[in-house]
Amino acid sequence: MTDFAALSKQVSNWGRWGPDDELGTLNLIDAAAVRRGIAAVQDGRSLSLAIPLDDKGPQMGFIPGRINPLRSMIALNQPFSDDVVVMGLQAGTHWDALAHVGHDGVLYNGHPAAAVTVAGASKCGIDKVATLVSRGVLLDVAGAKGVDKLEPGYAVTGEDLDAAAGRAGVTVEAGDVVLVRTGQMQNFRAGDRMAYAYPSAGLSLSTAEWFHSHDVAAVATDNLTCEVYPSEISEPYLPVHLLHLVYMGLTQGQNFDLEALAADCAADGRYTFLLDASPQPFTGGLGSPVNPVVTK
Amino acid sequence: MTDFAALSKQVSNWGRWGPDDELGTLNLIDAAAVRRGIAAVQDGRSLSLAIPLDDKGPQMGFIPGRINPLRSMIALNQPFSDDVVVMGLQAGTHWDALAHVGHDGVLYNGHPAAAVTVAGASKCGIDKVATLVSRGVLLDVAGAKGVDKLEPGYAVTGEDLDAAAGRAGVTVEAGDVVLVRTGQMQNFRAGDRMAYAYPSAGLSLSTAEWFHSHDVAAVATDNLTCEVYPSEISEPYLPVHLLHLVYMGLTQGQNFDLEALAADCAADGRYTFLLDASPQPFTGGLGSPVNPVVTK
Amino acid sequence: MTDFAALSKQVSNWGRWGPDDELGTLNLIDAAAVRRGIAAVQDGRSLSLAIPLDDKGPQMGFIPGRINPLRSMIALNQPFSDDVVVMGLQAGTHWDALAHVGHDGVLYNGHPAAAVTVAGASKCGIDKVATLVSRGVLLDVAGAKGVDKLEPGYAVTGEDLDAAAGRAGVTVEAGDVVLVRTGQMQNFRAGDRMAYAYPSAGLSLSTAEWFHSHDVAAVATDNLTCEVYPSEISEPYLPVHLLHLVYMGLTQGQNFDLEALAADCAADGRYTFLLDASPQPFTGGLGSPVNPVVTK
Amino acid sequence: MTDFAALSKQVSNWGRWGPDDELGTLNLIDAAAVRRGIAAVQDGRSLSLAIPLDDKGPQMGFIPGRINPLRSMIALNQPFSDDVVVMGLQAGTHWDALAHVGHDGVLYNGHPAAAVTVAGASKCGIDKVATLVSRGVLLDVAGAKGVDKLEPGYAVTGEDLDAAAGRAGVTVEAGDVVLVRTGQMQNFRAGDRMAYAYPSAGLSLSTAEWFHSHDVAAVATDNLTCEVYPSEISEPYLPVHLLHLVYMGLTQGQNFDLEALAADCAADGRYTFLLDASPQPFTGGLGSPVNPVVTK
Repeated sequence: MTDFAALSKQVSNWGRWGPDDELGTLNLIDAAAVRRGIAAVQDGRSLSLAIPLDDKGPQMGFIPGRINPLRSMIALNQPFSDDVVVMGLQAGTHWDALAHVGHDGVLYNGHPAAAVTVAGASKCGIDKVATLVSRGVLLDVAGAKGVDKLEPGYAVTGEDLDAAAGRAGVTVEAGDVVLVRTGQMQNFRAGDRMAYAYPSAGLSLSTAEWFHSHDVAAVATDNLTCEVYPSEISEPYLPVHLLHLVYMGLTQGQNFDLEALAADCAADGRYTFLLDASPQPFTGGLGSPVNPVVTK
Repeated sequence: MTDFAALSKQVSNWGRWGPDDELGTLNLIDAAAVRRGIAAVQDGRSLSLAIPLDDKGPQMGFIPGRINPLRSMIALNQPFSDDVVVMGLQAGTHWDALAHVGHDGVLYNGHPAAAVTVAGASKCGIDKVATLVSRGVLLDVAGAKGVDKLEPGYAVTGEDLDAAAGRAGVTVEAGDVVLVRTGQMQNFRAGDRMAYAYPSAGLSLSTAEWFHSHDVAAVATDNLTCEVYPSEISEPYLPVHLLHLVYMGLTQGQNFDLEALAADCAADGRYTFLLDASPQPFTGGLGSPVNPVVTK
Repeated sequence: MTDFAALSKQVSNWGRWGPDDELGTLNLIDAAAVRRGIAAVQDGRSLSLAIPLDDKGPQMGFIPGRINPLRSMIALNQPFSDDVVVMGLQAGTHWDALAHVGHDGVLYNGHPAAAVTVAGASKCGIDKVATLVSRGVLLDVAGAKGVDKLEPGYAVTGEDLDAAAGRAGVTVEAGDVVLVRTGQMQNFRAGDRMAYAYPSAGLSLSTAEWFHSHDVAAVATDNLTCEVYPSEISEPYLPVHLLHLVYMGLTQGQNFDLEALAADCAADGRYTFLLDASPQPFTGGLGSPVNPVVTK
Repeated sequence: MTDFAALSKQVSNWGRWGPDDELGTLNLIDAAAVRRGIAAVQDGRSLSLAIPLDDKGPQMGFIPGRINPLRSMIALNQPFSDDVVVMGLQAGTHWDALAHVGHDGVLYNGHPAAAVTVAGASKCGIDKVATLVSRGVLLDVAGAKGVDKLEPGYAVTGEDLDAAAGRAGVTVEAGDVVLVRTGQMQNFRAGDRMAYAYPSAGLSLSTAEWFHSHDVAAVATDNLTCEVYPSEISEPYLPVHLLHLVYMGLTQGQNFDLEALAADCAADGRYTFLLDASPQPFTGGLGSPVNPVVTK
């Protein structure tokens, strides 16, 4: 049985970047990581990993209030056309802010959970992340297993990540942003939002150890829940979220569409690239939509 | 007196990329432009040009419905925290979609203005722009004139752009994204939204010719209106918008905060960089918030 | 086969209250009708017919954008608590404005459909209805048939309305507001939103004639679609909507919860009462939430 | 100097309707009060007291997030037209829920302030008020003083209410809903939102005693703040709010337009009427827009 408490201590980064730090593993993105990303660019072409922002998004009401984007017009050829949107900040392709979850009354680095109020996150909000640019690495777990997509509910392991990295010929380095492909996004693209939501292949507790030992700066997945769902353990709820956001300070992303990227990497054999996945600067935001852009 | 009709013909790109084109000058971003941006990176550090997304944004109600972002909480430490936002897509740092304005019943490339309906833009919407990555160039017009900020209502000319490029030692090339600094943003940063709004230094009709002759891919400014306001001519309304969006198909951005970038470029003497200013993929959107990120 | 065109002419009220009229049958509410409502009050107690306004409302996404109310907090004990809501104006218990539908390019009374723009309804908007107070009459069709609720898809006829009025001992008079109970609301109250939506018992084409001949001021039902759904005829779409809103100028309401009222009327044998169902004054609104209140 | 603590004890209704009560003085609306309202109706005509719900409403941003209604279209003659609104529940003509403010950690009747969370008010929310129908009484304080509107910042006293009642020939009885006219609404109607907001004539601490001794069921005013602003005392903030909502459990309304009503009552000499000011049933809402309708 997994000892969650022991694991959370093992992967903890509390205090690593000082008692006031609110960025966690994004601190690992240094000049070398950015230049590594720059050096990975050969062709001079870019690719978006975002799903469309509209009312056909993946939200189905399971999280009350996390609504798909509803865009409506406020001016129409008069002589210009303007629009307004209402949306959950975690509705589409997005990053969770570190403040998105707490555990035992605290956020990452021991900041009090009470730092999140109706006014938003005064600590560890998404606005603390001005830019998120580094080398990106695609770990195509489904591809490495020779399947289109992993089985529903499959828990990706550290060994799976090793296998995907090995197949890609990549050594993940400190400060890299890792994109883990399960193939789950194919359900959404096929219009089956229910199958996309649940059960879902995703990250396991063991991958947290892997990200920790590799000093990964951020991780994103091509599913709704980031972690495998149903979870491996019943308590606490969404344990991988807690390991990432609370204990490691690891910014995590969801609903990244990695299908075209996987095909592209398979075609040219290059699984590293420059990634700009900077969030939108919502003051006190608990997350942000993002248009992650790969440049190869 | 400026002959708007003649000018609009002179700078027109209609048909240049085929009768169905919806991207306009963004077509000028080719592999060479991206690689030029990559080659401009030396240090491996990034800088955001976005202003905060919150209810203290620059909108003051002059355009009814274009509201500053209002973020509110839908879950609070239960155990996670989620938020929802309502905002005008053109409220903060943003790109206008080419469909944002029409003239004489048509959009860019002759697409009918009726392609914009209450459902949004079926032609020339912001969702057609998957990525926007190229070499960026800062043309610090205020800096080149030796002032903190241009006079309110000053119309930036093509000569001003030449002077700024000359001072920067930059030759603007086809596919570059040009950022024009007027210093107007200082009013917003100082909390004076009214002075920020009006009157405003900004782009003149002559700069449209300049952008056209230099084959600029996109242009963004550090003010609310992009163009000088009040305008140089009384008819048509917002003439530079029409030249850019309708006739040239030139994607234009507003409310870019260029203050820190200007200081940075002055310090290291390098006014070119990699710029990722990819919009959010709002289906049919007339614009999009953007977090423009410079990497140097 | 029903001849829709003939029927629409037969029940038309165009011109009846002048060429500029935007109120339609609400003009029938005169002092006598109000006093009739007042005279129906014996006990001095009130009853609401509204369903709760929250994210568990009846909307399931079939009409894109017509979202259930999403209320979120903008201040929390600081020292006061405030909230903001986003909702479809037709999402819960509501009135349709006469401008809600047009036919062949026109609205009620021949006003052009183009009077409805992205700015809302400049003609026949809900804001034209300042107050809606009259005598209300419950016609409990399900009750008169001795069933809890009508069969799904049952088309209520004029004869059914006669039977219900007869059982109630009521003569419907000019200016009365008629509430027609099908029992369909029981599905919603039981949590089965799909069964509530479709198929649905509701008003038939023949009831339009009935309302016309009785000079009813407004009509409301306890279902989602007002009229029977699927419809009796395939063309035009939602034909009873067209008869009511476009040709008769008959304000119609949906999602009125008539369950408690039916029990109350059965208990005391009194099916008439004072009804205040005044809409909220949304300028140019195509409809409005309403809390219809019965006083007996 | 006013002893706020003593006054709050004096007017307290805690425990009066049992330890679980969430309705406060609305309990005073009994059958006699409703019948008294019914008996006041002579003519059979109705009048709305609501201001328009649109983006020209009285909110100017002083309370962040309390936004004027922004209505936008989600369907336009396709073939129907639908709209969606986002608005502060306290933005226009509205009732405050008793949960709107707390004091010293408690709400009305000693309910914990913690009963208000990001999910809304689980105690004393506006949804607990299904209907609000009673006899209404207009106390035209400005009219009784012979002025169009009271001086800005004038604190209405209990003596002023006596004078207005005396002039009207009305004896306020237990369960009546009292509408207090200051004339402040004229500023809003004239388009001067700043003058409407501040400084404002309004209710004083002494009127709380008056409402308490007369067993008024609810009170509404024709200004933004309900109470006089700036306040008579510096601590606590908005003291009349606290007396009304926390200690008396007195539901209070703001932004009621009493201008036409005052003229009407002056013309026929009748200052009592039936009032239906039932809120909209927002689950857990801290307030609600209301269209208060007078029937005379």
